[in-house]
Amino acid sequence: MKIARFSHEGAIAFGIVDDDELVVLKSDPMFAGYDPTGERVELVDVKLLAPVIPRSKIIALREGSGLENARPSFVLKPNTSVVGPGDPIVLPGQSSDITVTGALAIIIGTFAKDVTVADAASKVFGYTVAADVTARDLELLPEQAATASAFDSFCPLGPVIDTEFDPETTVIHGRINDGQFQNSSAGVMEHTVAEVVAFASSLFTLLPGDVILTGAPGSSGTIVAGDAVQIEIPGVGVLVNSVRAA
Amino acid sequence: MKIARFSHEGAIAFGIVDDDELVVLKSDPMFAGYDPTGERVELVDVKLLAPVIPRSKIIALREGSGLENARPSFVLKPNTSVVGPGDPIVLPGQSSDITVTGALAIIIGTFAKDVTVADAASKVFGYTVAADVTARDLELLPEQAATASAFDSFCPLGPVIDTEFDPETTVIHGRINDGQFQNSSAGVMEHTVAEVVAFASSLFTLLPGDVILTGAPGSSGTIVAGDAVQIEIPGVGVLVNSVRAA
Repeated sequence: MKIARFSHEGAIAFGIVDDDELVVLKSDPMFAGYDPTGERVELVDVKLLAPVIPRSKIIALREGSGLENARPSFVLKPNTSVVGPGDPIVLPGQSSDITVTGALAIIIGTFAKDVTVADAASKVFGYTVAADVTARDLELLPEQAATASAFDSFCPLGPVIDTEFDPETTVIHGRINDGQFQNSSAGVMEHTVAEVVAFASSLFTLLPGDVILTGAPGSSGTIVAGDAVQIEIPGVGVLVNSVRAA
Repeated sequence: MKIARFSHEGAIAFGIVDDDELVVLKSDPMFAGYDPTGERVELVDVKLLAPVIPRSKIIALREGSGLENARPSFVLKPNTSVVGPGDPIVLPGQSSDITVTGALAIIIGTFAKDVTVADAASKVFGYTVAADVTARDLELLPEQAATASAFDSFCPLGPVIDTEFDPETTVIHGRINDGQFQNSSAGVMEHTVAEVVAFASSLFTLLPGDVILTGAPGSSGTIVAGDAVQIEIPGVGVLVNSVRAA
Protein backbone atom coordinates (compact mmCIF):
# COMPACT_ATOMS: atom_id res chain seq x y z
CA MET A 1 0.00 0.00 0.00
CA LYS A 2 1.25 3.49 -0.84
CA ILE A 3 0.25 6.32 1.50
CA ALA A 4 0.36 9.98 0.57
CA ARG A 5 0.08 13.10 2.68
CA PHE A 6 -1.26 15.94 0.62
CA SER A 7 -2.90 19.32 0.53
CA HIS A 8 -6.12 19.79 -1.39
CA GLU A 9 -8.44 22.79 -1.35
CA GLY A 10 -6.58 24.26 1.60
CA ALA A 11 -6.67 21.22 3.86
CA ILE A 12 -4.01 18.62 4.66
CA ALA A 13 -5.06 14.97 4.53
CA PHE A 14 -3.76 11.43 4.09
CA GLY A 15 -4.75 9.05 1.35
CA ILE A 16 -4.04 5.65 -0.17
CA VAL A 17 -2.77 5.71 -3.75
CA ASP A 18 -5.12 3.84 -6.11
CA ASP A 19 -3.82 4.21 -9.67
CA ASP A 20 -4.14 7.92 -10.44
CA GLU A 21 -6.46 8.63 -7.53
CA LEU A 22 -6.19 8.91 -3.76
CA VAL A 23 -8.62 7.21 -1.39
CA VAL A 24 -8.91 9.92 1.26
CA LEU A 25 -8.48 8.82 4.89
CA LYS A 26 -10.04 10.39 7.97
CA SER A 27 -6.70 10.70 9.74
CA ASP A 28 -3.03 9.70 9.79
CA PRO A 29 -3.09 5.90 9.25
CA MET A 30 0.04 5.48 11.38
CA PHE A 31 -2.01 6.43 14.41
CA ALA A 32 -5.63 5.91 13.33
CA GLY A 33 -5.57 2.95 10.95
CA TYR A 34 -7.09 2.92 7.48
CA ASP A 35 -10.41 4.67 7.80
CA PRO A 36 -11.63 6.13 4.47
CA THR A 37 -13.82 9.20 4.33
CA GLY A 38 -15.51 7.84 1.19
CA GLU A 39 -14.04 10.66 -0.87
CA ARG A 40 -11.56 10.18 -3.72
CA VAL A 41 -9.39 12.84 -5.31
CA GLU A 42 -7.25 12.75 -8.40
CA LEU A 43 -3.52 12.69 -7.76
CA VAL A 44 -3.05 15.40 -10.36
CA ASP A 45 -5.28 17.74 -8.34
CA VAL A 46 -3.31 17.61 -5.09
CA LYS A 47 0.05 18.84 -3.87
CA LEU A 48 1.95 15.95 -2.33
CA LEU A 49 3.61 16.84 0.98
CA ALA A 50 6.36 15.12 2.93
CA PRO A 51 4.52 11.89 3.85
CA VAL A 52 5.60 12.12 7.49
CA ILE A 53 6.60 14.97 9.80
CA PRO A 54 8.53 13.30 12.61
CA ARG A 55 7.30 14.23 16.08
CA SER A 56 10.57 13.17 17.63
CA LYS A 57 13.60 12.64 15.43
CA ILE A 58 15.29 11.89 12.16
CA ILE A 59 18.53 9.96 12.41
CA ALA A 60 20.78 9.68 9.41
CA LEU A 61 23.24 6.84 9.11
CA ARG A 62 26.82 7.82 8.43
CA GLU A 63 28.61 4.79 7.08
CA GLY A 64 31.88 4.44 5.26
CA SER A 65 34.15 4.08 8.24
CA GLY A 66 35.99 1.40 6.32
CA LEU A 67 35.90 -0.77 9.41
CA GLU A 68 34.09 -3.99 8.71
CA ASN A 69 31.48 -4.72 11.37
CA ALA A 70 32.00 -1.27 12.84
CA ARG A 71 28.97 0.03 14.69
CA PRO A 72 26.99 2.41 12.52
CA SER A 73 27.05 6.04 13.50
CA PHE A 74 24.28 8.58 13.18
CA VAL A 75 23.67 12.29 13.00
CA LEU A 76 20.38 13.90 14.01
CA LYS A 77 18.23 16.10 11.81
CA PRO A 78 15.37 18.13 13.31
CA ASN A 79 11.89 17.99 11.78
CA THR A 80 12.43 21.56 10.55
CA SER A 81 14.79 20.02 7.97
CA VAL A 82 11.91 18.14 6.29
CA VAL A 83 10.43 19.35 3.02
CA GLY A 84 8.24 17.54 0.53
CA PRO A 85 8.33 16.51 -3.10
CA GLY A 86 8.85 19.48 -5.39
CA ASP A 87 9.94 21.77 -2.58
CA PRO A 88 13.27 23.57 -2.93
CA ILE A 89 16.43 22.62 -1.11
CA VAL A 90 17.64 26.02 0.13
CA LEU A 91 21.41 26.42 0.32
CA PRO A 92 22.41 28.20 3.54
CA GLY A 93 24.94 30.99 3.29
CA GLN A 94 27.10 29.35 5.96
CA SER A 95 28.34 26.66 3.57
CA SER A 96 30.01 26.62 0.18
CA ASP A 97 30.08 22.84 -0.32
CA ILE A 98 26.71 21.13 -0.09
CA THR A 99 26.14 17.55 -1.15
CA VAL A 100 23.18 15.23 -1.48
CA THR A 101 22.92 11.46 -1.10
CA GLY A 102 19.88 9.43 -2.02
CA ALA A 103 18.70 7.36 0.91
CA LEU A 104 16.05 4.86 1.81
CA ALA A 105 14.01 6.41 4.64
CA ILE A 106 12.70 3.93 7.20
CA ILE A 107 9.51 5.15 8.88
CA ILE A 108 9.13 3.74 12.39
CA GLY A 109 5.56 2.71 13.22
CA THR A 110 5.64 1.71 16.88
CA PHE A 111 7.55 2.35 20.08
CA ALA A 112 10.91 0.56 19.93
CA LYS A 113 13.72 0.37 22.48
CA ASP A 114 16.51 -2.22 22.52
CA VAL A 115 14.84 -4.40 19.91
CA THR A 116 16.66 -7.36 18.39
CA VAL A 117 17.54 -7.60 14.71
CA ALA A 118 14.91 -10.33 14.43
CA ASP A 119 12.19 -8.06 15.87
CA ALA A 120 13.24 -4.88 14.07
CA ALA A 121 11.12 -5.36 10.94
CA SER A 122 7.93 -5.40 13.02
CA LYS A 123 8.67 -1.84 14.19
CA VAL A 124 8.71 -0.42 10.65
CA PHE A 125 5.62 1.30 9.27
CA GLY A 126 6.99 1.71 5.76
CA TYR A 127 9.57 3.30 3.55
CA THR A 128 9.94 6.47 1.54
CA VAL A 129 12.67 8.16 -0.49
CA ALA A 130 14.99 10.73 1.06
CA ALA A 131 17.50 13.23 -0.24
CA ASP A 132 20.02 13.43 2.61
CA VAL A 133 21.64 16.87 2.31
CA THR A 134 24.84 17.84 4.15
CA ALA A 135 27.07 20.90 4.27
CA ARG A 136 30.25 18.96 3.67
CA ASP A 137 32.60 21.80 4.61
CA LEU A 138 30.87 22.26 7.98
CA GLU A 139 30.76 18.50 8.58
CA LEU A 140 34.56 18.50 8.51
CA LEU A 141 34.74 21.05 11.36
CA PRO A 142 34.37 19.19 14.67
CA GLU A 143 32.41 22.04 16.24
CA GLN A 144 29.93 22.21 13.34
CA ALA A 145 29.68 18.52 12.44
CA ALA A 146 26.61 17.83 14.59
CA THR A 147 24.50 20.39 12.76
CA ALA A 148 25.96 20.23 9.23
CA SER A 149 23.06 18.03 8.08
CA ALA A 150 20.39 19.82 10.11
CA PHE A 151 19.60 23.02 8.18
CA ASP A 152 16.08 23.80 7.04
CA SER A 153 15.20 21.82 3.87
CA PHE A 154 18.11 19.38 4.30
CA CYS A 155 15.74 16.39 4.50
CA PRO A 156 13.41 16.14 1.50
CA LEU A 157 11.08 13.13 1.92
CA GLY A 158 8.55 11.58 -0.42
CA PRO A 159 6.66 11.17 -2.58
CA VAL A 160 4.75 8.47 -0.63
CA ILE A 161 5.23 5.84 2.06
CA ASP A 162 5.25 2.28 0.78
CA THR A 163 4.17 -0.08 3.56
CA GLU A 164 5.06 -3.26 1.67
CA PHE A 165 8.48 -2.48 0.22
CA ASP A 166 11.18 -5.11 0.75
CA PRO A 167 14.33 -3.17 1.73
CA GLU A 168 16.53 -6.01 0.50
CA THR A 169 15.52 -5.01 -3.01
CA THR A 170 16.62 -1.39 -2.54
CA VAL A 171 18.23 0.26 -5.53
CA ILE A 172 18.89 4.01 -5.36
CA HIS A 173 19.37 6.10 -8.48
CA GLY A 174 20.50 9.65 -7.81
CA ARG A 175 20.59 12.30 -10.50
CA ILE A 176 21.51 15.98 -10.50
CA ASN A 177 20.13 17.56 -13.66
CA ASP A 178 21.13 15.09 -16.40
CA GLY A 179 23.99 13.46 -14.55
CA GLN A 180 23.76 10.33 -12.46
CA PHE A 181 25.84 10.54 -9.26
CA GLN A 182 24.48 7.51 -7.47
CA ASN A 183 23.53 4.02 -8.52
CA SER A 184 23.67 1.94 -5.39
CA SER A 185 21.90 -1.11 -4.10
CA ALA A 186 21.21 -2.69 -0.73
CA GLY A 187 24.27 -4.81 -1.33
CA VAL A 188 26.67 -1.89 -0.89
CA MET A 189 25.23 -0.89 2.48
CA GLU A 190 27.30 -2.03 5.41
CA HIS A 191 24.25 -2.88 7.50
CA THR A 192 20.80 -4.25 6.75
CA VAL A 193 17.69 -2.20 7.56
CA ALA A 194 16.94 -4.56 10.46
CA GLU A 195 20.44 -4.07 11.85
CA VAL A 196 20.15 -0.31 11.55
CA VAL A 197 16.76 -0.19 13.31
CA ALA A 198 17.98 -2.50 16.07
CA PHE A 199 21.12 -0.46 16.58
CA ALA A 200 19.24 2.86 16.56
CA SER A 201 16.88 1.46 19.18
CA SER A 202 19.87 0.70 21.41
CA LEU A 203 20.73 4.41 21.40
CA PHE A 204 17.28 6.02 21.47
CA THR A 205 13.69 5.18 22.19
CA LEU A 206 12.17 5.15 18.72
CA LEU A 207 8.66 6.58 18.41
CA PRO A 208 6.00 6.31 15.68
CA GLY A 209 6.94 8.72 12.90
CA ASP A 210 10.65 8.65 13.61
CA VAL A 211 12.67 8.43 10.41
CA ILE A 212 15.97 6.67 9.84
CA LEU A 213 17.93 7.48 6.67
CA THR A 214 20.17 4.74 5.33
CA GLY A 215 22.36 6.13 2.61
CA ALA A 216 25.03 4.45 0.55
CA PRO A 217 28.60 5.30 1.52
CA GLY A 218 30.47 7.49 -0.92
CA SER A 219 27.54 8.15 -3.23
CA SER A 220 27.04 11.88 -3.00
CA GLY A 221 26.72 14.70 -5.48
CA THR A 222 27.49 18.39 -5.08
CA ILE A 223 24.53 20.72 -5.57
CA VAL A 224 24.40 24.38 -6.51
CA ALA A 225 21.57 26.84 -7.00
CA GLY A 226 19.49 26.03 -10.06
CA ASP A 227 20.07 22.29 -9.91
CA ALA A 228 17.29 19.72 -10.00
CA VAL A 229 17.82 16.69 -7.76
CA GLN A 230 16.05 13.42 -8.48
CA ILE A 231 16.26 10.39 -6.21
CA GLU A 232 14.54 7.24 -7.38
CA ILE A 233 14.02 4.00 -5.48
CA PRO A 234 12.17 1.66 -7.84
CA GLY A 235 9.12 0.29 -6.08
CA VAL A 236 8.88 3.27 -3.72
CA GLY A 237 8.95 6.30 -5.98
CA VAL A 238 10.82 9.27 -7.37
CA LEU A 239 11.59 12.32 -5.24
CA VAL A 240 12.32 15.54 -7.15
CA ASN A 241 13.56 18.77 -5.57
CA SER A 242 14.94 21.98 -6.96
CA VAL A 243 17.90 23.78 -5.42
CA ARG A 244 18.09 27.49 -4.71
CA ALA A 245 20.20 29.93 -2.76
CA ALA A 246 18.92 31.28 0.57
CA MET B 1 5.00 33.94 36.22
CA LYS B 2 6.05 30.34 36.83
CA ILE B 3 4.38 27.64 34.74
CA ALA B 4 4.32 23.98 35.67
CA ARG B 5 3.35 20.92 33.68
CA PHE B 6 2.17 18.19 35.98
CA SER B 7 0.25 14.97 36.39
CA HIS B 8 -2.58 14.80 38.87
CA GLU B 9 -5.12 12.02 39.30
CA GLY B 10 -3.99 10.40 36.05
CA ALA B 11 -4.22 13.47 33.83
CA ILE B 12 -1.53 15.82 32.52
CA ALA B 13 -2.18 19.55 32.82
CA PHE B 14 -0.51 22.95 32.99
CA GLY B 15 -0.75 25.39 35.86
CA ILE B 16 0.54 28.69 37.19
CA VAL B 17 2.45 28.48 40.46
CA ASP B 18 0.76 30.55 43.20
CA ASP B 19 2.65 30.02 46.45
CA ASP B 20 2.13 26.36 47.29
CA GLU B 21 -0.73 25.89 44.87
CA LEU B 22 -1.21 25.61 41.14
CA VAL B 23 -3.85 27.56 39.22
CA VAL B 24 -4.88 24.91 36.70
CA LEU B 25 -5.04 25.99 33.05
CA LYS B 26 -7.28 24.61 30.33
CA SER B 27 -4.36 24.00 27.96
CA ASP B 28 -0.69 24.67 27.24
CA PRO B 29 -0.29 28.44 27.76
CA MET B 30 2.41 28.59 25.07
CA PHE B 31 -0.23 27.86 22.47
CA ALA B 32 -3.52 28.70 24.20
CA GLY B 33 -2.73 31.63 26.51
CA TYR B 34 -3.61 31.76 30.21
CA ASP B 35 -7.08 30.32 30.50
CA PRO B 36 -7.78 28.95 34.01
CA THR B 37 -10.19 26.10 34.58
CA GLY B 38 -11.14 27.60 37.95
CA GLU B 39 -9.57 24.64 39.74
CA ARG B 40 -6.57 24.87 42.07
CA VAL B 41 -4.40 21.98 43.25
CA GLU B 42 -1.74 21.84 45.92
CA LEU B 43 1.81 21.57 44.59
CA VAL B 44 2.51 18.80 47.07
CA ASP B 45 -0.28 16.70 45.53
CA VAL B 46 1.06 16.67 41.96
CA LYS B 47 4.01 15.14 40.15
CA LEU B 48 5.86 17.86 38.27
CA LEU B 49 6.80 16.85 34.72
CA ALA B 50 9.27 18.33 32.30
CA PRO B 51 7.60 21.72 31.69
CA VAL B 52 7.96 21.42 27.93
CA ILE B 53 8.25 18.51 25.48
CA PRO B 54 9.76 20.03 22.35
CA ARG B 55 7.84 19.25 19.19
CA SER B 56 10.83 20.02 17.03
CA LYS B 57 14.26 20.24 18.65
CA ILE B 58 16.60 20.80 21.54
CA ILE B 59 19.89 22.42 20.67
CA ALA B 60 22.68 22.47 23.21
CA LEU B 61 25.40 25.06 23.02
CA ARG B 62 28.93 23.75 23.02
CA GLU B 63 31.22 26.59 23.99
CA GLY B 64 34.78 26.64 25.17
CA SER B 65 36.49 26.82 21.80
CA GLY B 66 38.88 29.34 23.33
CA LEU B 67 38.42 31.52 20.28
CA GLU B 68 37.07 34.88 21.27
CA ASN B 69 34.08 35.85 19.14
CA ALA B 70 34.02 32.38 17.67
CA ARG B 71 30.59 31.35 16.43
CA PRO B 72 28.84 29.15 18.94
CA SER B 73 28.39 25.55 17.99
CA PHE B 74 25.49 23.27 18.83
CA VAL B 75 24.58 19.64 19.16
CA LEU B 76 21.04 18.34 18.79
CA LYS B 77 19.14 16.33 21.37
CA PRO B 78 15.87 14.59 20.44
CA ASN B 79 12.78 15.03 22.60
CA THR B 80 13.19 11.42 23.72
CA SER B 81 16.12 12.71 25.81
CA VAL B 82 13.79 14.85 27.97
CA VAL B 83 12.85 13.74 31.47
CA GLY B 84 11.33 15.73 34.30
CA PRO B 85 12.19 16.71 37.86
CA GLY B 86 12.85 13.69 40.03
CA ASP B 87 13.18 11.32 37.09
CA PRO B 88 16.32 9.23 36.83
CA ILE B 89 19.17 9.89 34.45
CA VAL B 90 19.80 6.41 33.03
CA LEU B 91 23.42 5.67 32.16
CA PRO B 92 23.62 3.83 28.83
CA GLY B 93 25.90 0.82 28.62
CA GLN B 94 27.66 2.26 25.59
CA SER B 95 29.59 4.81 27.68
CA SER B 96 31.85 4.64 30.72
CA ASP B 97 32.37 8.40 31.15
CA ILE B 98 29.19 10.41 31.53
CA THR B 99 29.14 14.03 32.65
CA VAL B 100 26.52 16.62 33.51
CA THR B 101 26.56 20.40 33.15
CA GLY B 102 23.96 22.70 34.61
CA ALA B 103 22.45 24.89 31.92
CA LEU B 104 19.91 27.63 31.51
CA ALA B 105 17.24 26.31 29.11
CA ILE B 106 15.72 28.91 26.82
CA ILE B 107 12.16 28.01 25.76
CA ILE B 108 11.27 29.48 22.38
CA GLY B 109 7.73 30.86 22.20
CA THR B 110 7.23 31.89 18.60
CA PHE B 111 8.45 31.08 15.10
CA ALA B 112 11.92 32.56 14.61
CA LYS B 113 14.20 32.49 11.59
CA ASP B 114 17.16 34.81 11.01
CA VAL B 115 16.24 37.13 13.86
CA THR B 116 18.57 39.89 14.99
CA VAL B 117 20.13 40.00 18.44
CA ALA B 118 17.87 42.98 19.18
CA ASP B 119 14.74 40.99 18.29
CA ALA B 120 15.80 37.71 19.89
CA ALA B 121 14.34 38.34 23.36
CA SER B 122 10.84 38.70 21.91
CA LYS B 123 11.01 35.10 20.65
CA VAL B 124 11.58 33.66 24.13
CA PHE B 125 8.64 32.21 26.07
CA GLY B 126 10.61 31.65 29.26
CA TYR B 127 13.39 29.79 30.98
CA THR B 128 13.85 26.59 32.90
CA VAL B 129 16.73 24.64 34.42
CA ALA B 130 18.47 21.87 32.48
CA ALA B 131 20.94 19.14 33.31
CA ASP B 132 22.86 18.73 30.07
CA VAL B 133 24.17 15.16 30.08
CA THR B 134 26.86 13.91 27.70
CA ALA B 135 28.73 10.66 27.17
CA ARG B 136 32.14 12.28 27.17
CA ASP B 137 34.00 9.26 25.84
CA LEU B 138 31.65 8.99 22.85
CA GLU B 139 31.78 12.75 22.24
CA LEU B 140 35.52 12.40 21.59
CA LEU B 141 34.92 9.87 18.80
CA PRO B 142 34.12 11.77 15.59
CA GLU B 143 31.64 9.13 14.45
CA GLN B 144 29.73 9.16 17.76
CA ALA B 145 30.00 12.85 18.66
CA ALA B 146 26.67 13.85 17.11
CA THR B 147 24.70 11.47 19.31
CA ALA B 148 26.80 11.47 22.51
CA SER B 149 24.37 13.93 24.16
CA ALA B 150 21.22 12.40 22.68
CA PHE B 151 20.51 9.27 24.73
CA ASP B 152 17.19 8.83 26.53
CA SER B 153 17.13 10.85 29.77
CA PHE B 154 20.12 13.02 28.80
CA CYS B 155 18.03 16.21 29.02
CA PRO B 156 16.33 16.65 32.39
CA LEU B 157 14.25 19.86 32.38
CA GLY B 158 12.36 21.66 35.15
CA PRO B 159 10.95 22.18 37.63
CA VAL B 160 8.98 25.07 36.03
CA ILE B 161 9.19 27.67 33.26
CA ASP B 162 9.79 31.21 34.49
CA THR B 163 8.44 33.67 31.94
CA GLU B 164 9.94 36.75 33.59
CA PHE B 165 13.48 35.64 34.40
CA ASP B 166 16.27 38.01 33.35
CA PRO B 167 18.98 35.79 31.83
CA GLU B 168 21.64 38.40 32.59
CA THR B 169 21.22 37.48 36.26
CA THR B 170 21.86 33.77 35.64
CA VAL B 171 23.84 31.95 38.29
CA ILE B 172 24.10 28.16 38.03
CA HIS B 173 24.94 26.00 41.02
CA GLY B 174 25.60 22.36 40.16
CA ARG B 175 25.93 19.68 42.82
CA ILE B 176 26.50 15.94 42.70
CA ASN B 177 25.58 14.46 46.07
CA ASP B 178 27.29 16.80 48.55
CA GLY B 179 29.90 18.17 46.19
CA GLN B 180 29.59 21.35 44.16
CA PHE B 181 31.01 20.97 40.64
CA GLN B 182 29.63 24.12 39.10
CA ASN B 183 29.22 27.68 40.27
CA SER B 184 28.97 29.76 37.16
CA SER B 185 27.28 32.99 36.20
CA ALA B 186 26.13 34.64 33.01
CA GLY B 187 29.45 36.47 32.99
CA VAL B 188 31.44 33.34 32.13
CA MET B 189 29.30 32.50 29.11
CA GLU B 190 30.89 33.47 25.84
CA HIS B 191 27.60 34.63 24.34
CA THR B 192 24.48 36.30 25.69
CA VAL B 193 21.11 34.56 25.48
CA ALA B 194 20.07 37.00 22.76
CA GLU B 195 23.19 36.19 20.75
CA VAL B 196 22.60 32.48 21.12
CA VAL B 197 18.94 32.70 20.02
CA ALA B 198 19.85 34.90 17.07
CA PHE B 199 22.63 32.57 16.01
CA ALA B 200 20.47 29.46 16.41
CA SER B 201 17.81 31.11 14.25
CA SER B 202 20.40 31.58 11.51
CA LEU B 203 20.90 27.81 11.38
CA PHE B 204 17.35 26.55 11.96
CA THR B 205 13.79 27.72 11.92
CA LEU B 206 12.95 27.85 15.62
CA LEU B 207 9.44 26.75 16.57
CA PRO B 208 7.38 27.23 19.75
CA GLY B 209 8.57 24.74 22.32
CA ASP B 210 12.09 24.46 20.94
CA VAL B 211 14.67 24.46 23.71
CA ILE B 212 18.17 25.90 23.65
CA LEU B 213 20.61 24.89 26.40
CA THR B 214 23.30 27.41 27.26
CA GLY B 215 25.83 25.81 29.54
CA ALA B 216 28.98 27.20 31.07
CA PRO B 217 32.22 26.03 29.49
CA GLY B 218 34.29 23.67 31.56
CA SER B 219 31.78 23.23 34.37
CA SER B 220 30.91 19.58 34.27
CA GLY B 221 30.79 16.77 36.78
CA THR B 222 31.12 13.04 36.28
CA ILE B 223 28.09 10.98 37.32
CA VAL B 224 27.81 7.33 38.29
CA ALA B 225 24.89 5.14 39.33
CA GLY B 226 23.50 6.12 42.70
CA ASP B 227 24.39 9.81 42.42
CA ALA B 228 21.93 12.61 43.00
CA VAL B 229 22.31 15.60 40.68
CA GLN B 230 21.00 19.01 41.71
CA ILE B 231 21.09 22.02 39.40
CA GLU B 232 19.91 25.32 40.84
CA ILE B 233 19.37 28.61 39.05
CA PRO B 234 18.20 31.10 41.69
CA GLY B 235 15.01 32.77 40.50
CA VAL B 236 14.07 29.84 38.25
CA GLY B 237 14.28 26.80 40.50
CA VAL B 238 16.09 23.66 41.53
CA LEU B 239 16.16 20.55 39.33
CA VAL B 240 16.93 17.28 41.08
CA ASN B 241 17.55 13.96 39.34
CA SER B 242 18.85 10.61 40.47
CA VAL B 243 21.30 8.55 38.42
CA ARG B 244 21.00 4.86 37.71
CA ALA B 245 22.47 2.24 35.42
CA ALA B 246 20.49 1.07 32.41
